[in-house]
Amino acid sequence: MAKIPVGVLGATGMVGQQYIALLANHPWFEVRYVAASSRSAGKKYKDAAAGRWHAGKGGGCGPEVGDLVVGDANDLSQALTQAEAGNCAFLFSALEMGKEEILALEENYAAAGFPVISNASAHRWTADVPMLIAEVNPGHTDIIPLQKKRKGWDRGFIAVKPNCSIQSYTTPVYALIRAGYEIKRIIVSTLQAVSGAGYPGPASLDMIDNIIPYIGGEEEKSEMEPLKILGDIQDGAIVKRELPKISAHCNRVAVADGHTACVSLEFGEKKPGIDEVKRIWADFRSLPQELNLPTAPLRPIIVREEEDRPQPRKDRDADKAMAVTVGRIRPCGVFDLRFVGLSHNTVRGAAGGGILNAELLKHQGYITP
Amino acid sequence: MAKIPVGVLGATGMVGQQYIALLANHPWFEVRYVAASSRSAGKKYKDAAAGRWHAGKGGGCGPEVGDLVVGDANDLSQALTQAEAGNCAFLFSALEMGKEEILALEENYAAAGFPVISNASAHRWTADVPMLIAEVNPGHTDIIPLQKKRKGWDRGFIAVKPNCSIQSYTTPVYALIRAGYEIKRIIVSTLQAVSGAGYPGPASLDMIDNIIPYIGGEEEKSEMEPLKILGDIQDGAIVKRELPKISAHCNRVAVADGHTACVSLEFGEKKPGIDEVKRIWADFRSLPQELNLPTAPLRPIIVREEEDRPQPRKDRDADKAMAVTVGRIRPCGVFDLRFVGLSHNTVRGAAGGGILNAELLKHQGYITP
Amino acid sequence: MAKIPVGVLGATGMVGQQYIALLANHPWFEVRYVAASSRSAGKKYKDAAAGRWHAGKGGGCGPEVGDLVVGDANDLSQALTQAEAGNCAFLFSALEMGKEEILALEENYAAAGFPVISNASAHRWTADVPMLIAEVNPGHTDIIPLQKKRKGWDRGFIAVKPNCSIQSYTTPVYALIRAGYEIKRIIVSTLQAVSGAGYPGPASLDMIDNIIPYIGGEEEKSEMEPLKILGDIQDGAIVKRELPKISAHCNRVAVADGHTACVSLEFGEKKPGIDEVKRIWADFRSLPQELNLPTAPLRPIIVREEEDRPQPRKDRDADKAMAVTVGRIRPCGVFDLRFVGLSHNTVRGAAGGGILNAELLKHQGYITP
Amino acid sequence: MAKIPVGVLGATGMVGQQYIALLANHPWFEVRYVAASSRSAGKKYKDAAAGRWHAGKGGGCGPEVGDLVVGDANDLSQALTQAEAGNCAFLFSALEMGKEEILALEENYAAAGFPVISNASAHRWTADVPMLIAEVNPGHTDIIPLQKKRKGWDRGFIAVKPNCSIQSYTTPVYALIRAGYEIKRIIVSTLQAVSGAGYPGPASLDMIDNIIPYIGGEEEKSEMEPLKILGDIQDGAIVKRELPKISAHCNRVAVADGHTACVSLEFGEKKPGIDEVKRIWADFRSLPQELNLPTAPLRPIIVREEEDRPQPRKDRDADKAMAVTVGRIRPCGVFDLRFVGLSHNTVRGAAGGGILNAELLKHQGYITP
Repeated sequence: MAKIPVGVLGATGMVGQQYIALLANHPWFEVRYVAASSRSAGKKYKDAAAGRWHAGKGGGCGPEVGDLVVGDANDLSQALTQAEAGNCAFLFSALEMGKEEILALEENYAAAGFPVISNASAHRWTADVPMLIAEVNPGHTDIIPLQKKRKGWDRGFIAVKPNCSIQSYTTPVYALIRAGYEIKRIIVSTLQAVSGAGYPGPASLDMIDNIIPYIGGEEEKSEMEPLKILGDIQDGAIVKRELPKISAHCNRVAVADGHTACVSLEFGEKKPGIDEVKRIWADFRSLPQELNLPTAPLRPIIVREEEDRPQPRKDRDADKAMAVTVGRIRPCGVFDLRFVGLSHNTVRGAAGGGILNAELLKHQGYITP
Repeated sequence: MAKIPVGVLGATGMVGQQYIALLANHPWFEVRYVAASSRSAGKKYKDAAAGRWHAGKGGGCGPEVGDLVVGDANDLSQALTQAEAGNCAFLFSALEMGKEEILALEENYAAAGFPVISNASAHRWTADVPMLIAEVNPGHTDIIPLQKKRKGWDRGFIAVKPNCSIQSYTTPVYALIRAGYEIKRIIVSTLQAVSGAGYPGPASLDMIDNIIPYIGGEEEKSEMEPLKILGDIQDGAIVKRELPKISAHCNRVAVADGHTACVSLEFGEKKPGIDEVKRIWADFRSLPQELNLPTAPLRPIIVREEEDRPQPRKDRDADKAMAVTVGRIRPCGVFDLRFVGLSHNTVRGAAGGGILNAELLKHQGYITP
Repeated sequence: MAKIPVGVLGATGMVGQQYIALLANHPWFEVRYVAASSRSAGKKYKDAAAGRWHAGKGGGCGPEVGDLVVGDANDLSQALTQAEAGNCAFLFSALEMGKEEILALEENYAAAGFPVISNASAHRWTADVPMLIAEVNPGHTDIIPLQKKRKGWDRGFIAVKPNCSIQSYTTPVYALIRAGYEIKRIIVSTLQAVSGAGYPGPASLDMIDNIIPYIGGEEEKSEMEPLKILGDIQDGAIVKRELPKISAHCNRVAVADGHTACVSLEFGEKKPGIDEVKRIWADFRSLPQELNLPTAPLRPIIVREEEDRPQPRKDRDADKAMAVTVGRIRPCGVFDLRFVGLSHNTVRGAAGGGILNAELLKHQGYITP
Repeated sequence: MAKIPVGVLGATGMVGQQYIALLANHPWFEVRYVAASSRSAGKKYKDAAAGRWHAGKGGGCGPEVGDLVVGDANDLSQALTQAEAGNCAFLFSALEMGKEEILALEENYAAAGFPVISNASAHRWTADVPMLIAEVNPGHTDIIPLQKKRKGWDRGFIAVKPNCSIQSYTTPVYALIRAGYEIKRIIVSTLQAVSGAGYPGPASLDMIDNIIPYIGGEEEKSEMEPLKILGDIQDGAIVKRELPKISAHCNRVAVADGHTACVSLEFGEKKPGIDEVKRIWADFRSLPQELNLPTAPLRPIIVREEEDRPQPRKDRDADKAMAVTVGRIRPCGVFDLRFVGLSHNTVRGAAGGGILNAELLKHQGYITP
C-alpha cells in the first residue's frame, strides 16, 4: 500500500522534530512537506534543524526528510502550488507563534482543503473543533461534518489535541467514569519536564538545584481542557461537562521529558475500592486498541505496584512512550483516592498523540489519500 | 555573660553537622561535647567528620569544636563522668538509629539529668513530650513539669521538633487559625530536597532527569504531626486536634536544600479574602519574635508577590534560613485557597528549629546553666 | 539455529542487568542461568531485581529471564549440577566483590569448564588473559590456548574487557596508530557518568550543582589499560607497549550515562593533518565489522562536525550505543591534536562490549555450543 | 570616612547584579548610579531587576540601590549631567553588548573623566590597558599614566579584568613562577558553571543529564589572557610572555557557580617537589593581602588535602568566594605536575575581582574621591 503523504507545519521546533522522528518509519504516513518560519524557509530540513535537534537521542533524521526544502509556513500559496505540499492528504501543525496568527493560519490551510491535526492551543476552545485523546473521546470527531458545514469547507477541517499536562490523569479519570463512577472533585499537582516549554525553555540556572512552582497558563489548561474532552456534542457544539471540578498546581522540575501528576480525587456516592480502581485501569482498552491503530499503546494505562513508581526516567518510554503509567494507588485522607500518573509529554502529550489522532481520523474516513 | 555549655548527640551526621555549624558563633550556647556512633568515638571531631562535611559551604568547623574528642553516644556513663559532657546544660539529639534505640537513649540521658532537645522522630507521639515549632505552640512546654513528674526526673526532660516536611505549611496554617479562621481540609503536595534524607540519601542515578514520587513514612508524618502541634494540653497530655484533615503527596526532587509545598486549603464558614490572607501572613509575629530570640527570624512568614516564587535556590536562605517563604497565594477552584510554601529543611526544618526551641526553653527557665 | 545457552554471574547488579537487557533478543545467545550474591539466590530473577532495575528505560525483563531462579554465584557446585547452568556454553561475569574473591571465583568457573567473559578488573593484568576491545586487539585471543595450557584447563578460559573510562579514546588512538602514526603522549580529562560507579554510586547530594574531580583507581586504569590492549603477544604473555604515555584526570559529573574524554595528543615525527585524522576515523572498520558481528556498530567511530558535539545525552546511544562519537577535532597549541570522544559506559563500556567480545570468541571458535 | 560614590554600567545583568550585591556593605564604596540598556532605563533598579535577580540567594537588594532610577548606559550626556552619576568617582562596567559598542562606550566614559573598571572583554588586548588579577600583576597599573597620556585623558582611564575561566589556574601558576620555577607548557580542561554564560545562558534541556564540550571563544581566552597578565611593561605597552604555552579544553557542566580546572603542567629544568608546590601555594600572599584590602582573601590560594576536593558546591564560597582552592596536587605521568583548581566565577571571576581591582587602584591613587 502506498503511504499517505503528509506535511508538518512548524517542523523545526521541538514538537515538529518529534513529529519527524516518530513518522520516520510510520506504516501509513510519509512526510513529504515541511514548513517553518521564514528564517528556516528555503533551507534543507537537515540544515534548518542542525544544531537544535532534540528528538531521538541517536540524533538527526534520515535523508528522505532531511533533504526536503523547508517551506514558509506563512506562505499558504506556496504550499498550494508546491507539488509535494499540494499532494499532502493532511497537515500536522506544530506551529509556535501568537494565538491569533495560529488561528488564522490553521483556518487558511483548512479552507484551502487541508485537514489540520494541530498541537497548538489556539483552536482548543472553538466549539466545533474536537480536542481529542483518542482513547477518551474518539466520538467527538462526529462534530467535524458540522464544522465543515459551518465554515463551508469541502475537504479541510481542524482537529486539535489537548495540553501535555493533562495526559497523565485525564485517561485514568475517564476510565473510572466509563466504569460508572462519578468524579466530583480533583486536586492535582504536576511536576513537569522542561521539554514541555519548548526550546530553549527554562534557563539551566533556574533548574539546577531548584524548581519553579509556576508555568504560565498551564493551570487553567489543566483545569479546563479535561472538561471539554469529557463533554458531549449538543446542538452542533461540544459542551463541556461541569464535573469534576479541578484545581491544579503546576511546577517545573529538572526533568528532560515526562510529566508527573499527583492526584487526589473525590468520587460521587458510588465509590470503588482500591483493587477495583486498579482492575479498571489495568483492563482499560478503547477504540484505538480495538482498531489496532499503529501508534496506539497496547495498554493505555499501565498499573505499577512498586511503592516508588512511576518515575519519569524509568516509565516515560513505556509502550512506545504512548502509555500512561499510574502508581501509588491508595486512599486519600481528604478525598477518596490518591494516585500518581505519568506520561511522556513530547510523545503521548504532543507528536505521538497527534499521530494517533490522525490514525483515528484516517480510520474514520475523515482523512483520505 | 558566660556561654552555656551544650552537647550534640549524633554530631557527625548531616543534621549534627548543621548543629555544629549553626552553633559556631551562637551568643548563648557553646558546644562542649560531641557524641556519635562507636565508629567515630575516640577521634577528634574534625577527623570524624572529615570527608563528609556538608553543612556550611565554606566547609569545616573551627578548632573549638574540631578538636573535641567524639564520645560514644551509646555510652551514657562516659557522658556522665567526662567533664565536658557532664557540664552540659542540655543536649541536642540528632541521633540516627532505630526508633527503639533512640527512645531508650534519649530517656536515659533525660533520666541522668540532661534536657534533651531532639530532632529524632522517636518521641514525637509520646503524649507528654512537646513537639515544638517555636512560633506555633510555645505554650506546649507547659507539659514539661508533668513529664518530669511522671518519669520522676529531676532536671532532665525531652522536647522534640517535628518533621522537616511540615515546616513549609504548618506555620502559615497556624497563622490563619490564630487570626480566627477555621481550616477544615488540606491537600498538599511536597517537592522535597535530597538533604532531607540524610547522607548519602538518594542515589544520583535516581535523581538525574528524574523525580521519585515517594518518601517512606513522610506522608503519614506530614498529615499527623501538625495536628499534635495545633493541639491542646488536656489532663496531662497533648491532645491532637481533629481538624484540618490533611492529605499529603510527598515527592523527592533534584534539589539540595529546601522543601516546597503546594497547598490547597478549605476554610470553615468564615473565609478570608486573598488580601486578608497576605496581610495575616506578612504581619504574623509570635513569641520568639517578641522575645527577640537569637535564632528567630524577624518575619516568620515572608510573602512574595512574584508569580514564580518561592523557589528553593532563591528563597531557602531567607532570614538566616529560618523564615517560611510563601507565594502564589490565590483562590482554589476546588477548596478556598492555594499557595506555595518553602522552608530550608536542614536549618528551619532541623538544626535551626532545634536551636530556636532551646532558646525558647532557656527563656522559659526549663534550661538552666 | 538453536541459540547458545549462556549464564550471567552478578546478574542483579547494574552491569548484570545491562547484560540481561541487551541479550533479550540476541540472535546467537540466550540467557539460561543467572547467579548473584546469596542475598538474591533462590528468588526469581524478576523479584531479585525488582525495585532496582536500571537497564532499559521501559523497565523490567521478559518472562524467559524473569522467571529464572537466581543461583548463588559463590556456589560453584550448584552451577555445575543445576541443569540450566551446566548447559551454559559460557558465562558473562559482572561480579561485584573484592578482587581476590573475583580472581578465585572466575578461575574456579574456568577450571570447571566454563569460558568466562568478564567485566571485572581482577584479571585485567594477568599476563595471559586477553583484555579485549573487539575492534582494537581481536588477535589477542591467540593467547587463550597458552592460558588454557598453563592452567591445565580443558574447555574453560578467561577473557576480560577494559575499564569503561578508556573506551572514548582508545579506539580512536588505535585507528591513528593503525594508519601509521606513532603517538607519544596523551593528556586526557574525562567527564564520567554516575552509572559508571554502579548502584547506588555517588550520592545525589554530591552531584547536584557539583562535580567530583576524583574517581578512585580510575586514573591508573585510564593510563595503563590502553597499553596492554595496544601491546603484543611475546613468549606466552601480552606485553604492554611503552607508548603513548598517558596522563588522566578523571571527573564525575551529573550525567546518567555516557563518558566524555577531552584529549590532547602528541604524534611522533609523522603528523597527520586534521582532515586526515577525520578521514581515518570516519573510514575506520575492523574485524567485528568485517565479520558483521550482531552487536558490532556499523561505524565504530562516528565523526561529528558540529562545534559543540559530542554530548552525552545526544550521542551516547549512537549505533546501538556501541559507537564512539568524536568531535571538536582541532590542533592543540601544546601537543598536536585535540578532540573530544564519547561512548556509552554501560553498553559499549560494559555489557555491550562484553557481548561483542563473546561474539568474536564464538566466531573464532573459542566458544562452542 | 565618607564612602566613595561609584556607578555600575550594565547593572541589571548577572554580573551587574553581583556588583550590586557585593557592594551592599562595602566599607569604601557606595553605589550611587546604575545604568543599563534603554529597556531598563527610567525604572527603579528594583523594578528593572525584578524577576531576574540571581546574585545573593536571600534575593533582592536594599532600598539604597533599589530605589535608584536606572540610567541609559548608552546616554553618556545623561550620566554627566545627572547629579548622582556625575559625582561617581569611577564606574564598574558590566556591559553586555557587542565588542565595538563596548569599546566605544568605555572610551567615551573614560574621556568624560570616569575611570572605568571593566569586566568586559573588549579592551583586554588594548596594549596600554592593564588586565588585572590583583594578586598577580598589581604593578601593571603603572601603564595607566601612559594610557591617559596617549589618549589625552585627564582623569579617566580603563582597567579590565580577565575572563572568569582563567582564575582557577593563573594565580597558582604565577605563585610557582614567582617562587623561581619556569613553566613551559600547560594543558588544562575546564568544567565551567552555567552562570559564566550570563542569563539565560544554556537551556536546561541541554544541561540535564548532559555536558556541552564547547564554549564559544573561551579556549582562546583561556590560552592567551594569562600570557598578558604574566607579561611585562615595555615601551609603553604590556608585552605578553611567550611561555607557558597553554592548550585549553572548555566544557560547560550542570553547576550553577564555580569553575573547575584540571591542569597538567610542565616545568623548566628546575622542578619543585609536590610538597614544595603545596608549601608555595599555601604560603602565597601578595600585595592585596599586605595592604589588607577589604575584598582580598586572607589566603589567595587554599590547599586542600582530601583526595576528592576541590568541589564547586563545597569550595566556591571559600574566603568570601575570593580564594582559589586547589587540590589533587600530584605528579603528572606526561608533564610534571597535576592539580585541580577552583574559583567562584561570578565573584572572584567577575564582580569580586573587579571590586578588588578598584580597591587596589584606590590604594595606588589612581582613583580619588
